[in-house]
Amino acid sequence: MSTFTAFNPRTGDAAGPAFAEATAADIASAASRAASAFEQWRRVPARDRAKALRAIGNALIDARDQIIATVDLEAALGDTRINGELARTVAQLHGFADLLDQGAYVEAIIDSANPAATPPRPELRRVLQPLGPVAVFTPSNFPLAYGVIGGDTAGALAAGCSVLVKGHPSQPATSELFARIARAELAKTAGGADVLQLVHGRTPETGRGVVNAPEIQAVGFTGSVAAGRALFNVASARPEPIPFYGELGSLNPLFISPGALAERSADIATGLAASIAMGAGQFCTKPGLIFVPDSDAGREFAHTLASKLDAAPIGVLLNENIRHLLANRMQATMLVQGATCATDRDWPADAGFRAAPTLFVTDATTFAESSELREEHFGPISILVLSEPDQMKVIATELGGHLTGTIHAAADETAWAGALADALAQHVGRVIWNGFPTGVAVVPAMQHGGPYPSSTSSLHSAVGTTSIRRFLRPVAFQNMPEALLPAELQSSNPLGIERLVNGVRSASAL
Amino acid sequence: MSTFTAFNPRTGDAAGPAFAEATAADIASAASRAASAFEQWRRVPARDRAKALRAIGNALIDARDQIIATVDLEAALGDTRINGELARTVAQLHGFADLLDQGAYVEAIIDSANPAATPPRPELRRVLQPLGPVAVFTPSNFPLAYGVIGGDTAGALAAGCSVLVKGHPSQPATSELFARIARAELAKTAGGADVLQLVHGRTPETGRGVVNAPEIQAVGFTGSVAAGRALFNVASARPEPIPFYGELGSLNPLFISPGALAERSADIATGLAASIAMGAGQFCTKPGLIFVPDSDAGREFAHTLASKLDAAPIGVLLNENIRHLLANRMQATMLVQGATCATDRDWPADAGFRAAPTLFVTDATTFAESSELREEHFGPISILVLSEPDQMKVIATELGGHLTGTIHAAADETAWAGALADALAQHVGRVIWNGFPTGVAVVPAMQHGGPYPSSTSSLHSAVGTTSIRRFLRPVAFQNMPEALLPAELQSSNPLGIERLVNGVRSASAL
Repeated sequence: MSTFTAFNPRTGDAAGPAFAEATAADIASAASRAASAFEQWRRVPARDRAKALRAIGNALIDARDQIIATVDLEAALGDTRINGELARTVAQLHGFADLLDQGAYVEAIIDSANPAATPPRPELRRVLQPLGPVAVFTPSNFPLAYGVIGGDTAGALAAGCSVLVKGHPSQPATSELFARIARAELAKTAGGADVLQLVHGRTPETGRGVVNAPEIQAVGFTGSVAAGRALFNVASARPEPIPFYGELGSLNPLFISPGALAERSADIATGLAASIAMGAGQFCTKPGLIFVPDSDAGREFAHTLASKLDAAPIGVLLNENIRHLLANRMQATMLVQGATCATDRDWPADAGFRAAPTLFVTDATTFAESSELREEHFGPISILVLSEPDQMKVIATELGGHLTGTIHAAADETAWAGALADALAQHVGRVIWNGFPTGVAVVPAMQHGGPYPSSTSSLHSAVGTTSIRRFLRPVAFQNMPEALLPAELQSSNPLGIERLVNGVRSASAL
Repeated sequence: MSTFTAFNPRTGDAAGPAFAEATAADIASAASRAASAFEQWRRVPARDRAKALRAIGNALIDARDQIIATVDLEAALGDTRINGELARTVAQLHGFADLLDQGAYVEAIIDSANPAATPPRPELRRVLQPLGPVAVFTPSNFPLAYGVIGGDTAGALAAGCSVLVKGHPSQPATSELFARIARAELAKTAGGADVLQLVHGRTPETGRGVVNAPEIQAVGFTGSVAAGRALFNVASARPEPIPFYGELGSLNPLFISPGALAERSADIATGLAASIAMGAGQFCTKPGLIFVPDSDAGREFAHTLASKLDAAPIGVLLNENIRHLLANRMQATMLVQGATCATDRDWPADAGFRAAPTLFVTDATTFAESSELREEHFGPISILVLSEPDQMKVIATELGGHLTGTIHAAADETAWAGALADALAQHVGRVIWNGFPTGVAVVPAMQHGGPYPSSTSSLHSAVGTTSIRRFLRPVAFQNMPEALLPAELQSSNPLGIERLVNGVRSASAL
């Protein structure tokens, strides 16, 4: 039996007990149990699923102390961050519960029969129903909000899908704890504890095995472009391909105008330094690429930003692998002719997985010629590009896909900013005005997911209640008797949900 | 230069002029023009796109005589069918135009800022915007409704996408005619004629070239499982994978209860024979698999159905390839021990691509053991399986993915029918009660698309206005000034569209 342990990121030492790598038989068994549980869970009424989600949220709150201790040992995030992420995770569960109570998420559409039409039209009633068992791959950088009971799992459970989680190997005890909490609450429902399954693994084989399990009907994944693309390829090559919702890498380009610098250079530098250094830069929305006017004010801004990063705390990275990849990336960036490291600190030599916030400064020509500068540096490292505002507009049209794009401009620069916003909206999922991309509000209007490679399916969001749509598919019923229709489609509208009836939105009975 | 011609299905003779197979340079040029045109078309307000769709519909009506002559020469469908499909095609364009006028299809969501929240929440506004240039592969079996200006193209144009059509090689003159009509109307808009591009080709290389064109951001495809899966694989293997919306093969299983047979055996046989023979069985929703009680009444029904099929007209198939594949399928089915051909007619020896409606009868054991009987017979051929009603419930849980599933039952058989409907809803996109699957109503509640292989993306429909969602992706704007927001998101709601504002649906200004 192959086993592995977590490591304490602060010391680099092994932490906690050994966990067994899931075998092919383990995966097959978990997928089979998830499929059996799905047959029960999909029949649990939406409002009862909502109760279960709220109960899981309450159980998380009750387990706060144990969660903080377990997560902090494996992820070194500290109390404040863990408490904040716990609140977000509970809020996500409540958000989906509210969505289920309200009920319109099934997008019910009813079109009455029209015998007078040519050809005569039958009655049709359409509803969204759960896809089936869903696999969720948790990342290391959001142990709670994208962990075992994080956004992907909450959305899938809300949809009526069972979930097979492949836990991140850096945080096996965290995964176990969350699975135990969720399963205890699910056991009290008609779905049963098996609605949520957890397997551990650190090898690519284990990940491929989960995606290839024939019972699995969709995959939610948060992680690197390399790992995500490999699993996307597996999902697409299955005998029956399944949707793969990967939230991968993003540079989150941020553009600063001359007017914005003139108005509030210091404020922007302060906010930006915090956004880069926060969580040791291990947010998918970390601003990794900063475009600043090639002027005295721009160079001054670069200097200020570098100073602020030099004053920011040394970050603790989540695991050895992230540190290793980031160190390699650093070395490669150091070799780029025309790019200069503007921060002063060497990487700490302490034990543990530490990195100093770092800024590279370059010019637009070097940026255009160096693919290295367009690679994601996952950690507290950003690239600042000195360029003309007109150049920025061109650069914005040539970006690949990113989660976010940010514009800092003054009120009288809307012509420039408008062109930039229009270009950015073609390449990102979220356009931010005079702000910073970290801090992803969990509201219905959030869009977290942009063109590839920032996500593998830009039609959907990985954050917010609209993300439930990833785990639902439409089914239409033609001339079905009332008694055989799902409650959401019955003429009497027993759930009182909002529906589109003959083109008119209504919560009434027919 | 490689060229090809169409063939008259009634005679098998070459028909019409030679058309050039698109070269790699042709495809690159068409994709580039589509990308340039997209930059204009995406800026055309939705209500102006609606006007263009209606104008194309009107132009189709004006060209009715030429359309009938052109389509009939290449597809041998006859006036009645062509007129019916023309009406449907125009209705589809009008349906999308109405959707654009109404405007709620952009699913606008606005969440106001909440500075008191922890952490403080910014203002977020989300809208759906067009994906980019879309490739559409037309099938041979719906020269109008899924042709160059058919459902996929209409949905993509409605979404604000430009379209590169790869026309079916059986119908090049039909494709040219429709492209000319659409381009003439698009030329009158700010998008320009190039919003719609047409390339011809009959080789797999040409299809792959279209899917691989880097400008293309999504593919709509209607055709066989083999061709569709090959192109799905290409779309998924691109450096930047794109969504591939393939509507592929389906057996459309139909289940008949003892009670239904007792009540209306002759009516069901009449309707079913028409549904099988209609359009020479070349509908994606042709009932290809019929389950009938293994009883005297069931055997009598099989006999009646076979007689009605023997009395149905000989069908003309769309092209040599379909006839060739169907003849091979027939031969393979003839070899299945335990399956009997219940119809009497040999295939006609006339010139042209003809096929006689044909019924095979088998038992549940043979059906369970023969994969050949679960292959699609694209043409007027169906398999009837004599089985016990309880067996049918089990069979329904073991089906692959299909577009439709149909139940014929009496009013007092709802326990049996309910179990069957529940199982079918897990495997199909549309469950039909006491009806026949052919005849796909173009209404919002229609769902055309089920689990693989009936479609490659069961989250979406290929028919009806909800199909527009395939070509749209969400973008959120955070704290954007009113002047830089798309009209759909501005506080004043200048378009008066319905939006979700802080959780409440509203068409008012903020």
